[in-house]
Amino acid sequence: MKKISILGVTGSIGTQTLNIIQNNEERFQLVAMSAGRNIPLVEQTIERFQPKLVSVMEEADAERLRVRYPNTSFVSGTLGLKEVATYESDLLITAVVGSVGLEPTLAAIEARIPIALANKETLVAAGHIVMKRAKELNVPIIPVDSEHSALFQAMNGENPKTIRRLIITASGGSFRHLTRDELANVTVEQALAHPNWAMGNKLTIDSATMMNKGLEVIEAHHLFNLPFDQIDCVMHRESIIHSIVEFCDTSMIAQLGSPDMRVPIQYAMTYPDRIPMQEPKTLDLVALGQMNFETLDVNRFKALALAYEAGRTGGSLPTVMNAANEVAVAAFMAGCISFLQIDEMVERSMERHTVIQNPDLQTILEVDAMTRREITATIEK
Amino acid sequence: MKKISILGVTGSIGTQTLNIIQNNEERFQLVAMSAGRNIPLVEQTIERFQPKLVSVMEEADAERLRVRYPNTSFVSGTLGLKEVATYESDLLITAVVGSVGLEPTLAAIEARIPIALANKETLVAAGHIVMKRAKELNVPIIPVDSEHSALFQAMNGENPKTIRRLIITASGGSFRHLTRDELANVTVEQALAHPNWAMGNKLTIDSATMMNKGLEVIEAHHLFNLPFDQIDCVMHRESIIHSIVEFCDTSMIAQLGSPDMRVPIQYAMTYPDRIPMQEPKTLDLVALGQMNFETLDVNRFKALALAYEAGRTGGSLPTVMNAANEVAVAAFMAGCISFLQIDEMVERSMERHTVIQNPDLQTILEVDAMTRREITATIEK
Repeated sequence: MKKISILGVTGSIGTQTLNIIQNNEERFQLVAMSAGRNIPLVEQTIERFQPKLVSVMEEADAERLRVRYPNTSFVSGTLGLKEVATYESDLLITAVVGSVGLEPTLAAIEARIPIALANKETLVAAGHIVMKRAKELNVPIIPVDSEHSALFQAMNGENPKTIRRLIITASGGSFRHLTRDELANVTVEQALAHPNWAMGNKLTIDSATMMNKGLEVIEAHHLFNLPFDQIDCVMHRESIIHSIVEFCDTSMIAQLGSPDMRVPIQYAMTYPDRIPMQEPKTLDLVALGQMNFETLDVNRFKALALAYEAGRTGGSLPTVMNAANEVAVAAFMAGCISFLQIDEMVERSMERHTVIQNPDLQTILEVDAMTRREITATIEK
Repeated sequence: MKKISILGVTGSIGTQTLNIIQNNEERFQLVAMSAGRNIPLVEQTIERFQPKLVSVMEEADAERLRVRYPNTSFVSGTLGLKEVATYESDLLITAVVGSVGLEPTLAAIEARIPIALANKETLVAAGHIVMKRAKELNVPIIPVDSEHSALFQAMNGENPKTIRRLIITASGGSFRHLTRDELANVTVEQALAHPNWAMGNKLTIDSATMMNKGLEVIEAHHLFNLPFDQIDCVMHRESIIHSIVEFCDTSMIAQLGSPDMRVPIQYAMTYPDRIPMQEPKTLDLVALGQMNFETLDVNRFKALALAYEAGRTGGSLPTVMNAANEVAVAAFMAGCISFLQIDEMVERSMERHTVIQNPDLQTILEVDAMTRREITATIEK
């Protein structure tokens, strides 16, 4: 029986993870989980899975839950996140969104808990710290993002030194057919209608700006220890090939399948083995008929160019880019700024920042907080 | 230094193998080789690579070569093939065409020499014997056919029990756009113009009839120990995805790249590692633009249906199918029969044959010879 903990259990990845646990109860057991303010879903999950430890955002919610479920321990806030992350388990799935995942992930690494990483912002903000410490303590970091899971599966059994290039595929997001000019007046609702993947809101907006691909490039750089020159992106509107590894002999290995996040989640949970998928969405290549590949125009998708710049510059710049993007996306969803202002705000934050090389955790947290304050102030003006 | 022997050194696979050896002289050394009657190319190869042992078809040629190259040993005929196959080396590349490769391959297995198998007819005629013996003696059989190399690469690092299905891709061959009626009057020259791959003549004709895909299905069945229900084919006219493995969790792993036989040959020579490809034909997905997948119609491509039938029935039937096909293809290339008569002759031979279950090597050789005699007699009438 594999003991599973989940950070962000009520989100898209969290609920799909629960689905996999439910379908494989002889194999997996939920022992600890964190959630935000969706208390009805928290209650439902407690009743169904009987976890030992639950963290929620607000202490008031925790207090009410303690009365109702005396057999479960309840904690709250950022400290609660860390308690869930370090609870004794065989795999921690970090499915929170944003750099809030950073500190709990580091705490889990210190506690030697293997990590299934679905929280790309952690690696973007502090990949050099996270991967270094995971390597030192020999803690596996298994990617859950469909692209990184694809790369991870494709390099299975291969000598990492023979990798020539990673090719990350991009659906193009909700607005792939629009020019930059046409993006000026798009609405939040339009941005949230992703053509291929059902995902959380932040991720769907990031897909539309292509910042998601930029975050993934930086994530891949850290996960697979490869320079940015060896990480390319290609537009593949069908989202069938989830990513490709090119080797030094020109051979390419790709992972493909119907867009179904349960596949990379389950793979991270069963790696290095595989188990059958319940209610499988098997890919029928003949029914699909065609796969298309196009160039990703970095003039059109400015966020991708910004991410490469942040990644190549390194230091504290990716932290700034990520923090600015998180605030800008939230502001767009709240109706405070327009779609094109997301890129612009990120770019302005990056321009204003004086890069600190090799930032330690404290510096990263400060830069992250400062960037958020500054950009929030700009929006409120 | 890896010592390499080659059966069929003057053919398409043989010369490409020499090219790889030449480009990596610090890594590979040609120690033994067999050829047929192309003596000028044999001489050129001896001068360039200085092998220790050479086998040619005719003893008269061997005699002349002995005088000219006193530092090389020369042998001839089918016995010569076996001597090359069992010569002390680190890898034997079996690149002869047809079931003539069967006995030397078995001899190499007995001599515990790892085999890079480019001779699919060996597994079609006697896969149950070859794979059983290789397993007993722990002799690796590494596929060289692009499709099987793709499958082999795709299942690298995976648990074979989690494989759900193999999907072998087919370019469709020279006549993929013709209906069966339109095939009646096609010429040898038209059949030899393959759209994607530069290959030997027999293989190119087999691609046009789709018997090649049928032989590959049977080869895959033996190589990967999977039932025919778990081996599918799909038409993929660009020949970019060389084949796909589908796992029980719906994840698919594909190997892809420009059509370049040097890639699977070199992979077999360097497995489990990879080395850079000289003059690489790197795949540019954006330049490619599109991949297409269509169903393979077994009414149109009758040979594929015959191969599945032969494979599922098993026993001596695949041997009959293969022998009949070899003779029919030779007869077509000699202008004795029409293109559509290839399938028909294979079908008739299969219908006339009374299947012998679990045939031993002697029985297979007899069935092979008898089928050739019978079908040759039909053609001569």
